[in-house]
Amino acid sequence: MRVGVFDSGIGGLTVVKSLLEQKLFKEIIYFGDTARVPYGVKDKNTIVRYAVEALEFFKNFDIDILIIACNTVSAYALDKLQADADIPVVGVINPGVIALKNGVKDKDANILVIGTKATVKSKAYETQLFEDGYKNIISIPTGLFVPVVEEGIFEGAVLDSVMDFYFKDLNSIDAVILGCTHFPLIQDKIQAYLGGAKVIHSGDAIVEYLQKNYHCDKNFEKTKVQFFASDNPDGLKNVASDWLKGLIDE
Amino acid sequence: MRVGVFDSGIGGLTVVKSLLEQKLFKEIIYFGDTARVPYGVKDKNTIVRYAVEALEFFKNFDIDILIIACNTVSAYALDKLQADADIPVVGVINPGVIALKNGVKDKDANILVIGTKATVKSKAYETQLFEDGYKNIISIPTGLFVPVVEEGIFEGAVLDSVMDFYFKDLNSIDAVILGCTHFPLIQDKIQAYLGGAKVIHSGDAIVEYLQKNYHCDKNFEKTKVQFFASDNPDGLKNVASDWLKGLIDE
Repeated sequence: MRVGVFDSGIGGLTVVKSLLEQKLFKEIIYFGDTARVPYGVKDKNTIVRYAVEALEFFKNFDIDILIIACNTVSAYALDKLQADADIPVVGVINPGVIALKNGVKDKDANILVIGTKATVKSKAYETQLFEDGYKNIISIPTGLFVPVVEEGIFEGAVLDSVMDFYFKDLNSIDAVILGCTHFPLIQDKIQAYLGGAKVIHSGDAIVEYLQKNYHCDKNFEKTKVQFFASDNPDGLKNVASDWLKGLIDE
Repeated sequence: MRVGVFDSGIGGLTVVKSLLEQKLFKEIIYFGDTARVPYGVKDKNTIVRYAVEALEFFKNFDIDILIIACNTVSAYALDKLQADADIPVVGVINPGVIALKNGVKDKDANILVIGTKATVKSKAYETQLFEDGYKNIISIPTGLFVPVVEEGIFEGAVLDSVMDFYFKDLNSIDAVILGCTHFPLIQDKIQAYLGGAKVIHSGDAIVEYLQKNYHCDKNFEKTKVQFFASDNPDGLKNVASDWLKGLIDE
């Protein structure tokens, strides 16, 4: 199968990493809308418009399935994309909720959802989790993690102070949903700060989801990956070489 | 005179503040390209393309002069905009250099230029300052200040740690050019961290420049301001109400 992966920028490469580690696809076409990133501070109408334009891009390729790696796009534009596309379009919200349900059986557990402003405002995770009977859900927009990670900061005083800024009043979090594709890059730090809370990672969640629902279990020896970006494609390829070292041809 | 002010987002409001304080214009039309902000992490071609599109927007209004509040756009697209437009187009780089020259006579002074990645990469300030005989110029991309300010953080541990991250190895800076419209909002903190260095502020620099070169010295009793944004115009208006309190009608 040939899969398209759409993200607002480079963050979706963490999802590609999970796909590559599990050898799910023969070919991956990645498109990051780096000319207009970030989406997470923008309005619903703008996000939907950009997502629909990305769908046009993928029509250049004969893909079998489209994965929306970006939580913000998944939260706001998935319905529209599913209605417009003639192939399956899979977002990260639903797989993340399922992964949480599989990992946390206690409905009284304290669950933290973090993401961009737009994702948190959408209440996409919250709504589904409440419907599933979870009672204690705290959602915090933690948008600063995105530029911090993009600045190449994965540890140290800046990250610590930003975690303090967002998390200092929290206690006894049992599980945290990383509702933004950048966050897996600082997953260990977030988990440690939150006292070892269980972590739900969009990439791993979507792998499980695809294996179960789309029979993506071929275990391909080698995956061909092509990267496209609306701005500075070389920059995207450099980040991919770094983050996906050993998983893609240099 | 009716002036257009173009910025990639909300940052240019600090320039509007200087224009309003000095009562330079009868009418200001502000346009922030909030749907595609930030520009400062993007490529030259993309920045120029966006700026040219903004010029089209201003053709809807009968403006006498266009101010490019954004340092990144001023660094990359000013020539193109000046060639395309049939009115004067003024950027912030040249006024900033002139303000520095007026304020710092010692050519051996240690001058720090801070801005977005793109602005620093352009060497726009550096090139002009070297030509003017300044010898000691350090340029640092300090892009994280932008989302920090946009998160509403103007003091405290996060800002302190980010200043440490960028500035900790510097010593004896005599003057700092705030090469990004967001930075005036944390100007006092930056100045204090840098031991009281002289600060060059794009808004104040451009006011001086306009007064001198375009006879903008009418001292209008009242300035009418209209705000436009490519995404979430209400958000822009809210920030304007906050940052420009007392200077505009609510």
